[in-house]
Amino acid sequence: MIPENHMVVIFGSTGDLTKRKIIPAIYQLIRKEQFSEKCPIVCLGRREYTTEEFVSHLELSQFIKNSEPKILQQLSRQIVYIKQDLEEEAADSLRRRFDDITEKFGCGPNKLFYLALPASVFSQAAGIIQLFVDDPGWQRVVFEKPFGDDLSSAEELNNTITSVLREEQIYRVDHYLGKELVQNIFTLRFHNEIFRWAWHSDAIDHVQITASEVLGVEERAGYYDKSGAVRDMVQNHLLQLLSLVAMEPPLANNAEEIRNRTGKVIESLIPVKPDDVVLGQYEGYTQEHGVDGASQTETFAAFKVYVDMPRWKGVPFYLKTGKKLDERYADIKVVFKHNYELCKTGDCDQPNIIVIRIQPDDGIAIAFNVKRPGRSMITEPVLMDFCHHCYFGPNTPEAYESILLNVIQGEPTAFARWDWIRNSWRFVDHLRATAQAPLQYPQNSTGPAESDGLLKRSGRRWIHGEISPRRSQQQTQILPVML
Amino acid sequence: MIPENHMVVIFGSTGDLTKRKIIPAIYQLIRKEQFSEKCPIVCLGRREYTTEEFVSHLELSQFIKNSEPKILQQLSRQIVYIKQDLEEEAADSLRRRFDDITEKFGCGPNKLFYLALPASVFSQAAGIIQLFVDDPGWQRVVFEKPFGDDLSSAEELNNTITSVLREEQIYRVDHYLGKELVQNIFTLRFHNEIFRWAWHSDAIDHVQITASEVLGVEERAGYYDKSGAVRDMVQNHLLQLLSLVAMEPPLANNAEEIRNRTGKVIESLIPVKPDDVVLGQYEGYTQEHGVDGASQTETFAAFKVYVDMPRWKGVPFYLKTGKKLDERYADIKVVFKHNYELCKTGDCDQPNIIVIRIQPDDGIAIAFNVKRPGRSMITEPVLMDFCHHCYFGPNTPEAYESILLNVIQGEPTAFARWDWIRNSWRFVDHLRATAQAPLQYPQNSTGPAESDGLLKRSGRRWIHGEISPRRSQQQTQILPVML
Repeated sequence: MIPENHMVVIFGSTGDLTKRKIIPAIYQLIRKEQFSEKCPIVCLGRREYTTEEFVSHLELSQFIKNSEPKILQQLSRQIVYIKQDLEEEAADSLRRRFDDITEKFGCGPNKLFYLALPASVFSQAAGIIQLFVDDPGWQRVVFEKPFGDDLSSAEELNNTITSVLREEQIYRVDHYLGKELVQNIFTLRFHNEIFRWAWHSDAIDHVQITASEVLGVEERAGYYDKSGAVRDMVQNHLLQLLSLVAMEPPLANNAEEIRNRTGKVIESLIPVKPDDVVLGQYEGYTQEHGVDGASQTETFAAFKVYVDMPRWKGVPFYLKTGKKLDERYADIKVVFKHNYELCKTGDCDQPNIIVIRIQPDDGIAIAFNVKRPGRSMITEPVLMDFCHHCYFGPNTPEAYESILLNVIQGEPTAFARWDWIRNSWRFVDHLRATAQAPLQYPQNSTGPAESDGLLKRSGRRWIHGEISPRRSQQQTQILPVML
Repeated sequence: MIPENHMVVIFGSTGDLTKRKIIPAIYQLIRKEQFSEKCPIVCLGRREYTTEEFVSHLELSQFIKNSEPKILQQLSRQIVYIKQDLEEEAADSLRRRFDDITEKFGCGPNKLFYLALPASVFSQAAGIIQLFVDDPGWQRVVFEKPFGDDLSSAEELNNTITSVLREEQIYRVDHYLGKELVQNIFTLRFHNEIFRWAWHSDAIDHVQITASEVLGVEERAGYYDKSGAVRDMVQNHLLQLLSLVAMEPPLANNAEEIRNRTGKVIESLIPVKPDDVVLGQYEGYTQEHGVDGASQTETFAAFKVYVDMPRWKGVPFYLKTGKKLDERYADIKVVFKHNYELCKTGDCDQPNIIVIRIQPDDGIAIAFNVKRPGRSMITEPVLMDFCHHCYFGPNTPEAYESILLNVIQGEPTAFARWDWIRNSWRFVDHLRATAQAPLQYPQNSTGPAESDGLLKRSGRRWIHGEISPRRSQQQTQILPVML
């Protein structure tokens, strides 16, 4: 399946993202015959490189594991480096270079512009792209996150780019949406009759969405100390997961309808109350290289939020993310009620949980009750599991492969539409203004003890840790949840 | 957990059932400390044996795998053999022997009578048991299947035994009800919120209940040729499975309420139409040793039945059993509809299936759709699995262990009540009278081709074979079902 041909143009191509993510993703697309040899990869940057020097700077064999020499050669032949300062007038010289490349490769007029740049220079790049937006074929522009750093900066940025581009030309990346298991939330809910009937407040007690990291800020202190956990993880990734879990069923399988439905969720979030949010900062954060010694930036955020939709009446969503925690995993846990007459006493069974494991052990599981063998009607919670990587193999596409392929195919479902971004910033701005200063928490912990209080008040608790079969058999104590 | 003490009295103890099933089950109960050394096992038979000879006849080390010598010795010490012809007056001599044994072991007056006998001599045994039914403590009597061979013989038998025993003293064995996975149907449905919401005709398309055997009549021709598949497997086992799948939720967890609910199902079966039943006989059956050369006995039965309850409006239940088929397995497959708007075209997904595997790979699984990696929204059916024996180990109790324990504990849920038996015979008598003569089918096949027609007419098909993860990964072609 080779899509029609096109040119890829990467702005900011000398940065880490290009060599770590974008180029390796294109390598995989070439290997799978989803990216033709007729498609040039034009890399723009301010540094003085020849194309040969640039290819060597990409360190292909380091960033592409187990690469095949033939595919690597093919990839290298498709790369063209052009020195282009964003401040400079691009004018006719760039147009001429593009025309030459188009002719040489035979790629036609379609162009995918990838802005691997900080948002602060998006508008400058847009000035250059403006030269090409009315070319024949398609002209699509990919914006990396973060899209703004609050509502007003996002609005300003959006005004700038929409003055140049139409909404359908704009692809705002959330690389979580490129992950297989995130895309499977939609499939799980809307292509499976069995789960559809219980997806509402009469059956579901609450939902937990967690992205737990063991690493600290590492090399990203410069960016991270200005951003913090809420803007780095919540505004985009966690709220996207929430949107997919909570959305109403789309009536058609097209991007417009699906983004209408996810947009409705984010619009319906009830602003968080001061008591319902806990920020944290790991001990030693202010001593990290590149972090302000008096920094009040949060490296942990946990909060409770309600969605003002009939389906979710009274169902709290608990979201949590943090660095330097005790475990690395991202998942969604849909925790069911105890409605059945036989279990009204509350201690006879554990609640059912649907677990959508995004990483590392990607898969889908249901924690449910079976009869313990031999005795009459003592139940035990066990796991029914689908291991995604065991079944499909470890070679499922990385998020960036999926992102590029979706842009090439003109499939915008897995990208954020402006109304979604606007409402997510509105929600997050309020959350940040409402929250108390971050509380210190020990490294390698589950975060500030206060975050447990968010659930404890309602008799719930965080279901810590990844739930996968390995655990369910060796450490069954992870499964039980007291409601 | 040692229940209060009691005496076990086995009628027909020199038969196969005692050495193959009952004694090995008691061994396991002793090993698990669920059967005290104070409980004698009194074995009645017409042969002249000393207790020592009888114990040696039991061939304990052959029928109890990996037995521990200490437990075997313990078991042997508890066995007492008594020659007792059923035709003879038992009178005071047997009472005196029981009194002596009671005093020697210190077991008190409780007695479990196990009738390991053909139903034809049940009434004679009842004549002996009559001497003891008003003893203090509990007096419970276990009747092996078959309980009659049609409605009128079952009624006659029941009249005889109820003239001696009260209903609560009567335990009619269906050893399928002793199987862990059969007991788990109840747990799955009524201790798990997530499955409760989709368990009705709006969500479920149809149900398949299958017990497929690869063996032929083997040593049982004498009994089997008079019985046939419908009476041997359908009247008891398959209809019990159907009752558990289709029952309304009980409002309390007690035997009375549960048996009211399963009884209601069997009472609500709509008599089968002539076109909806197919009988078969495997090629070469009439040449089997012990089979009448002109036998018209069926070794295969398949039929469609509706349950006249609001929950199951329009939902067919397809039941099938047979000997000399291509695979050995027993399972229930609950096949869901395609209701969702995105799938109205019918070819975008495979239907969800809940699979309850009774044997051999006991477990519970859901066949559901996930997104195939890489492309947008092509789905693929996969299996989410809970492997019962992997998790609980291979040492889960055998059916007879569970049966004995339930009788000892006075827990009648897993035994058939008279109203259930009466209605099952009524249904089965009609089915047999309605059916055409058996069609020949090749050995090692899936039965007569005509049985496929039962489903094909409604655009359905048998989902042949066991669905377990091993298969789902090696032979994914087993999963897809065309509706």
